[in-house]
Amino acid sequence: MNVYRYEENPLVTPASIKPHKEGFEVIGAFNAGITTFNGEVIMLLRVAERPVSEDHHTVKSPVFNPETNKLEILSFSLNDPRYDFSDPRVINQQGSDQFSYLTSLSYLRIARSRDGRNFTIDEDPFIYPSTNLETFGIEDPRITKIGAVYYIYFSAISKNGVGEVLVSTEDFKTYEHLGMIFAPENKDVLIFPEKINGKYYALHRPVPKSTGAPEIWIAESDNLLYWGNHRHLIGLRENKWDNGRIGGGAVPIKTEKGWLELYHGASKESRYCMGAVLLDLEDPSKVLARSDAPILEPEADYEVQGFFGNVVFSCGVLVEGDVVKMYYGVADTSMACAELSLQEILDSLVYEKSVISR
Amino acid sequence: MNVYRYEENPLVTPASIKPHKEGFEVIGAFNAGITTFNGEVIMLLRVAERPVSEDHHTVKSPVFNPETNKLEILSFSLNDPRYDFSDPRVINQQGSDQFSYLTSLSYLRIARSRDGRNFTIDEDPFIYPSTNLETFGIEDPRITKIGAVYYIYFSAISKNGVGEVLVSTEDFKTYEHLGMIFAPENKDVLIFPEKINGKYYALHRPVPKSTGAPEIWIAESDNLLYWGNHRHLIGLRENKWDNGRIGGGAVPIKTEKGWLELYHGASKESRYCMGAVLLDLEDPSKVLARSDAPILEPEADYEVQGFFGNVVFSCGVLVEGDVVKMYYGVADTSMACAELSLQEILDSLVYEKSVISR
Repeated sequence: MNVYRYEENPLVTPASIKPHKEGFEVIGAFNAGITTFNGEVIMLLRVAERPVSEDHHTVKSPVFNPETNKLEILSFSLNDPRYDFSDPRVINQQGSDQFSYLTSLSYLRIARSRDGRNFTIDEDPFIYPSTNLETFGIEDPRITKIGAVYYIYFSAISKNGVGEVLVSTEDFKTYEHLGMIFAPENKDVLIFPEKINGKYYALHRPVPKSTGAPEIWIAESDNLLYWGNHRHLIGLRENKWDNGRIGGGAVPIKTEKGWLELYHGASKESRYCMGAVLLDLEDPSKVLARSDAPILEPEADYEVQGFFGNVVFSCGVLVEGDVVKMYYGVADTSMACAELSLQEILDSLVYEKSVISR
Repeated sequence: MNVYRYEENPLVTPASIKPHKEGFEVIGAFNAGITTFNGEVIMLLRVAERPVSEDHHTVKSPVFNPETNKLEILSFSLNDPRYDFSDPRVINQQGSDQFSYLTSLSYLRIARSRDGRNFTIDEDPFIYPSTNLETFGIEDPRITKIGAVYYIYFSAISKNGVGEVLVSTEDFKTYEHLGMIFAPENKDVLIFPEKINGKYYALHRPVPKSTGAPEIWIAESDNLLYWGNHRHLIGLRENKWDNGRIGGGAVPIKTEKGWLELYHGASKESRYCMGAVLLDLEDPSKVLARSDAPILEPEADYEVQGFFGNVVFSCGVLVEGDVVKMYYGVADTSMACAELSLQEILDSLVYEKSVISR
């Protein structure tokens, strides 16, 4: 796969962003939703901020309080036996694989560009946590434009779990909060950009507990607010690069061959790559073909090293003719962009046996 | 709380049911959905069957194959190091808290009664697994009647996870399969029996993995097929009988005081009791009051002992004036019924402080 990484990469880094809260530092500006608006490329950044700490014996956790509308900062001693601090991103319950708190809080902030390479970052957040389901932050937005409306949806994190919240905007100044559309545990929702045979469709990625794996499902809707007819779409593949967890990445791209979904897959060792899956144009619950090898994998320095290294994670692309401009988070730290050929991606897919025999 | 247990309890036991499949034994007839139809009480039983095994070195797992429409039986050696067989209900992955297979397969079968105490069991299943999301069985049905239509919904189990499937019937002879309405991991859905201010509502019980607990949420819909606006409703309570997991039980009962939901709560030690929560009549996402102590707890022999003892688990009640006829599964084995006073349940509830001060 020919991949042209921009010379300007990384395009946005934590250092280029002024913290929103005094006494905080920006540790990530990544996993941005992508669209165009008024002739500009809009990068809706996930910005992760954490309280600055000079004390190496305590770990802090910022928590949004929806009743006071303020951020509160909890402090934990590294000696507290109730918690496990070994993962810098989370404060885990000791002896459990569940987290109790996060060490940073993410919100959504706009970066704008005329050329898609040089970005100016808005002074203030665009979307900040606002409900009791967003107290630990909001993460990894995607943007689907339908008519004049931009639907923005993202993971909402709280002690009650991780689910997906929908908002809508027409001007990227104000927005309407439309509630949680996928209940915990779910993230990596991707709403298709048009109705297909009278229904809206969305990919989603439940994380079941008792049995099952973090895999990609598909659901349908008639109003974007309420979703049902959940069906399992594609799963992990043993002995491949996507044997740990998978989830949708960019808004599905309509091509002559089918709906092309650029998805992320992680290995069991948490190395995140991008791959592709092709879905039937008339019935996107039918899988036609899938990448054997990744179309993008962490190779550049800024992809391999960072807060959480070895990660490329796209939440949105722009397609211009045969050119796929894939914007993607790197190492849970910064944003980058690479161009790929749409035709080359399509040609690389391995078709399902049942499709070949048709 | 005054509880009148029927003298006929248990009303239905595995011994009273002829296995559907040759070479199988019925090990459970429990957690039935309840309604009335044509002047009879309908108990829609969850019947669990397993292959008879004389060989004590192997464990068998029945799995429905949706492509052949047949049941297949897998055999596992008790010495297989990949699996943990210590829980008789499941075959767990070794070193994981996830199950890989179940040791029995559940389906739904009708028991009918004129007096609500003496039941005749249909010869054949009413609803049997039929899709790739039901390969490990279907469990714990509830029934909500809206107009002339009986909506039946149940947990669907497969290697992809545990979600909730909806079907509808008007005659309890044929039904229409309406797909999975709540994606994994979710069960214990309870659809309210009428629209409230123009919306359908349902309780549901996600089981999140990364953070959060098995607690009760509420969602809304305009067509019963697609659900959204998910909100967290009530949680576990430390140092109480419901500190392990909770989930909806019976279809919510409309009273002058509010919607009364009889729910199940388990302790961390998996002792299952029934409690009650009262929701606002006009906005069921508002919690008004909740049981401090259980309204029913496992005390009778048939509740304490069985395949999985110390369990009372109601999936449906009949209300006649002040009498709540609570049908409930006992010890994951059989069905029983007890009568309680609706007024006494309402009087026992402890109101939220914010409600008292209104």
